[in-house]
Amino acid sequence: MRCLVSVSSGDEYPFERLAEFADDGDPLEVRGDLSHAKVRSGAPSIAARFSDFFAYKNAAEGGGLGEIVTPLVQAPQPLAEFIGIERLLLKNETMNPTWSFKDRGTLPCIWLAAELGETTLATISTGNMGHSVAAYAARHGLRALVFVPDFTPPEKILSMGAHGAVVVRVAAENFGVMKRSVLAHGEAAGLRIVSGNGPHRVEGYKLEAFEMWEQLGGETPDFIAVPTSACGHIRGIHKGWRELFAAGLVAQVPRMIVVQAANNAPLVSGIQQGLDHMVPVEHVETIAEAITSGNPPGGDALVRQARSLGWPAATATEEEIIDGQRRLAHSGYLVEPASAVSVHAVRKLRANGSIAADARVVLMLTGSGLKDPAILQRHSMKIMDVKERDLSAVLKDLVKP
Amino acid sequence: MRCLVSVSSGDEYPFERLAEFADDGDPLEVRGDLSHAKVRSGAPSIAARFSDFFAYKNAAEGGGLGEIVTPLVQAPQPLAEFIGIERLLLKNETMNPTWSFKDRGTLPCIWLAAELGETTLATISTGNMGHSVAAYAARHGLRALVFVPDFTPPEKILSMGAHGAVVVRVAAENFGVMKRSVLAHGEAAGLRIVSGNGPHRVEGYKLEAFEMWEQLGGETPDFIAVPTSACGHIRGIHKGWRELFAAGLVAQVPRMIVVQAANNAPLVSGIQQGLDHMVPVEHVETIAEAITSGNPPGGDALVRQARSLGWPAATATEEEIIDGQRRLAHSGYLVEPASAVSVHAVRKLRANGSIAADARVVLMLTGSGLKDPAILQRHSMKIMDVKERDLSAVLKDLVKP
Repeated sequence: MRCLVSVSSGDEYPFERLAEFADDGDPLEVRGDLSHAKVRSGAPSIAARFSDFFAYKNAAEGGGLGEIVTPLVQAPQPLAEFIGIERLLLKNETMNPTWSFKDRGTLPCIWLAAELGETTLATISTGNMGHSVAAYAARHGLRALVFVPDFTPPEKILSMGAHGAVVVRVAAENFGVMKRSVLAHGEAAGLRIVSGNGPHRVEGYKLEAFEMWEQLGGETPDFIAVPTSACGHIRGIHKGWRELFAAGLVAQVPRMIVVQAANNAPLVSGIQQGLDHMVPVEHVETIAEAITSGNPPGGDALVRQARSLGWPAATATEEEIIDGQRRLAHSGYLVEPASAVSVHAVRKLRANGSIAADARVVLMLTGSGLKDPAILQRHSMKIMDVKERDLSAVLKDLVKP
Repeated sequence: MRCLVSVSSGDEYPFERLAEFADDGDPLEVRGDLSHAKVRSGAPSIAARFSDFFAYKNAAEGGGLGEIVTPLVQAPQPLAEFIGIERLLLKNETMNPTWSFKDRGTLPCIWLAAELGETTLATISTGNMGHSVAAYAARHGLRALVFVPDFTPPEKILSMGAHGAVVVRVAAENFGVMKRSVLAHGEAAGLRIVSGNGPHRVEGYKLEAFEMWEQLGGETPDFIAVPTSACGHIRGIHKGWRELFAAGLVAQVPRMIVVQAANNAPLVSGIQQGLDHMVPVEHVETIAEAITSGNPPGGDALVRQARSLGWPAATATEEEIIDGQRRLAHSGYLVEPASAVSVHAVRKLRANGSIAADARVVLMLTGSGLKDPAILQRHSMKIMDVKERDLSAVLKDLVKP
């Protein structure tokens, strides 16, 4: 029997529960019957091959925007050398339908809505998640409702609104207050509203683990670095590997690396200080806009999980984030600042010995650099201005050995 | 023996030729030995499965940014109904590494550079192609040189420059003059400069045909609608199907549909007027920025090819492009304006009987809507402003049946 389970108390709740967290505020996760789960090797899509691992009736169908398969590729030498990890892999989630990993988490929302006959997909977001939900809702003929804080940049609202979503801009004290208020009033009104740490979205992120497992030919990375905000993504990737382990498909579960911006590190602070709770941040100011939860619901549980499993945690300063973004772009990958935090964070963990030089480490590239192009102005660039009549001389100069 | 061949005269040129066009200005294409070409079904990537169809030594390796597989999906019902084509398919090239189809064409440039020991990738672009070349050059440790007209919006330059490309902004009378001048001076200086209609880029677009063939289980679409500017993309997709036909893998070659903005339709005008040449456009003004060649080198040959093969051609007005973009976004796909031109163009061809109602038609979605977000401001959107204390009432209202 499928149900939701509190990750802390183990208390069970109905699978269809509207509220995303347990009664005591702890995160929930989906529990299905995995006793006979096996990979259906012949099936034509990843969702179909791993449908046994999902508690949704139509998981095998995937989503209407088509199959998602993102590359997992060895990092170029200069980047690997800078970080100090030879076996450095990049998982490029910017190649999703709406150009961030959020699409993975939206899939179970689509499956659930179909099963329960729900006609609205509602979410709270400052950007990527709202865009993803708006796009999938449009594709599946559902209404999208996206609650955003009133400080959300207008360009982020454009991509949600263009898909036909109803965008509700909420004026509140801060994002944390707004989030809790929207979730509470939504539940009272009988509306399912998904946040970044809801149990159903977490299920979708398992697909990234399953895909990496296929791409590595059944081998396991030692570490997976995940820029973390609401905690759903890191939990989902880990749950995927846990379930592969439970099914006897891998011999070890990789350790996650909790990555945050130094200016907003409630989770990393809790982990590094050896606490059993996060250290909330009141006024978040970081260019890593996609990871700005300063006090995420469920954050305490993530800190406890990270500590009990020995997950390393590290941050990058604003300058380091820009530098990391530049290094990734010079490696071929234009990512949003949040994705770039991992570069310096993992480098520090390598330098202090938390990660061995011969470890196999994956960096999750979570979202496209086109999501926030203005930030690129902070990079130094090589731009020349030339008159057409001078082209001949300029070209000769450019090809000089 | 591999070589380049003029598509008009059949004259042969060396495979390594620097100039992209024949001596008389006609387009060139790659000719390899396909007499024993077969699909290597067991191979793990599309580039490897179809390596027999490429005249490059390392085609099987693909590109360093990882394997590209973009979805080909049935269009949602409302869009299919609007266009009047039931079997309407969408090929989502926005899920490439730099979020446009241009990455396909950059792959052979990488293969060629590796074979010939060239260390610079140079191109002329106003946006997507420059970005793609900059990213792949960065990944492969090559220098990127991107020549752009001086009217290129700064935000387009940011994504090229962020990858470390040298961006050369050229002041010239217009884009056509600039393009011809850069190509001529590049050749004189011994520098290979690729434009949007070069024979090597054309080879890369064959991959889209091969991928569609696999995704359709060996069946063939009747029509493939391609927003067209420099002509390389439409030529490459067609060449891929032609080669599948030559290899006995399909019973017919699909017809291309030439799609352009009404404000800049040199090719469509030539085709519709039954000419054997294009009708150049002097001052291009269209929101479909990615397809603004008003006088593309090789355009005359494309008009002749289209006429001899019975390719339909149609345009969309600026208003229709915005409407098409809205309809695609409301179907789940946020595309750049150029990709949206097909919606109304194909609808017109269906309405005038050029395309049958039961035809199987593919629309190529060429680039991400994030490439040009400002244009989304022209869509009407549903945005509500709400104070946190009013959330309860608002939510109750929103969930009313």
